[in-house]
Amino acid sequence: MNRIITVSRQFGSGGREVGKRLADATGYAYYDRELVDKVADKTGLRPEFIEKYSEASTSRDFPYVYGRTFVHYQHTPEEEIQRVQFNAIRELAEKGDCIIIGRCADHILRDLDPFRVFVYSSDMQYRIDRCLLKVPEDAVKTSKQLQKEILQVDKQRKKYYEYYTGGQWGQVESYNLCVDTSYTGIKKAVELIVAAL
Amino acid sequence: MNRIITVSRQFGSGGREVGKRLADATGYAYYDRELVDKVADKTGLRPEFIEKYSEASTSRDFPYVYGRTFVHYQHTPEEEIQRVQFNAIRELAEKGDCIIIGRCADHILRDLDPFRVFVYSSDMQYRIDRCLLKVPEDAVKTSKQLQKEILQVDKQRKKYYEYYTGGQWGQVESYNLCVDTSYTGIKKAVELIVAAL
Repeated sequence: MNRIITVSRQFGSGGREVGKRLADATGYAYYDRELVDKVADKTGLRPEFIEKYSEASTSRDFPYVYGRTFVHYQHTPEEEIQRVQFNAIRELAEKGDCIIIGRCADHILRDLDPFRVFVYSSDMQYRIDRCLLKVPEDAVKTSKQLQKEILQVDKQRKKYYEYYTGGQWGQVESYNLCVDTSYTGIKKAVELIVAAL
Repeated sequence: MNRIITVSRQFGSGGREVGKRLADATGYAYYDRELVDKVADKTGLRPEFIEKYSEASTSRDFPYVYGRTFVHYQHTPEEEIQRVQFNAIRELAEKGDCIIIGRCADHILRDLDPFRVFVYSSDMQYRIDRCLLKVPEDAVKTSKQLQKEILQVDKQRKKYYEYYTGGQWGQVESYNLCVDTSYTGIKKAVELIVAAL
């Protein structure tokens, strides 16, 4: 059976970087934005549109818990993106060892027994500082603004995850290892995940 | 500054065993039930009584967030136990490197920057099986009964923690590393914690 690591993460905690370095350390394939292109190919939708809805919750009020594939009643465009994305995740996971960032992959692939990691930062300042480094020079943003944006993205991810999985995002039981990058740093976080495999 | 590891844990997940082995691995002092005796000495109360309230929430309806020491208004007996226990935890932490199990030590010692670990099991069956091993032969208990008891203890710990700290028990941000013993096993969990230090 293929070895699969799913990396869920708080915004600004360095989850993507942890995932990339994990791919370097293990030699596993790495899927993050690559999934956006795959969904774009299959749906004909523009990547920017897909990226926008890639981890955003839909407008329905009831939870949308699903099995291996989607039930084909009439989808909203966002749900159609999810359906294609979810099937793409399964295809990739069946191809070989891999690391998948976000997108409910832990839940979608649960029958394949993935190693489920959650990357977070108990220190909000660490996340703000990481985000500040990435803000373009001409876009002046205060720490307060960034904190608001960070919390907003997390709220969206949580809503999205809970809508599609019925599980709890950021709750320990949803994962096998939860690492605080503001304590360990990125490098040590990767070492711990590799050691736990 | 002394190195302090606080181990919070779900009931039945092996947190105490992780703590003990961590003490063997690091040479740090280990405090769990030792704290009960210390509180018994200072209060003159029976250890069984102290143990009962050692991590049980009190009857007040408002949160009891405190600073370094307690505010001396009139305490309930449970709160008096907490007050003595919390001061005992500070004394011990100031004595030398140590590992402290539960009892809000992560919060009580937050100014000493402890390494805060949460030990849990994403697989409930693992916890039930661990508890089954400890049930005396003459006490017949079903898995269903044990699961109910496990969840009840966790509920109490959560209530106790949140009452005295204003924080969230079992929420990733309250800790620096959260390890799923039903995935890693006890031995590997200890290795990961040592590696993260």
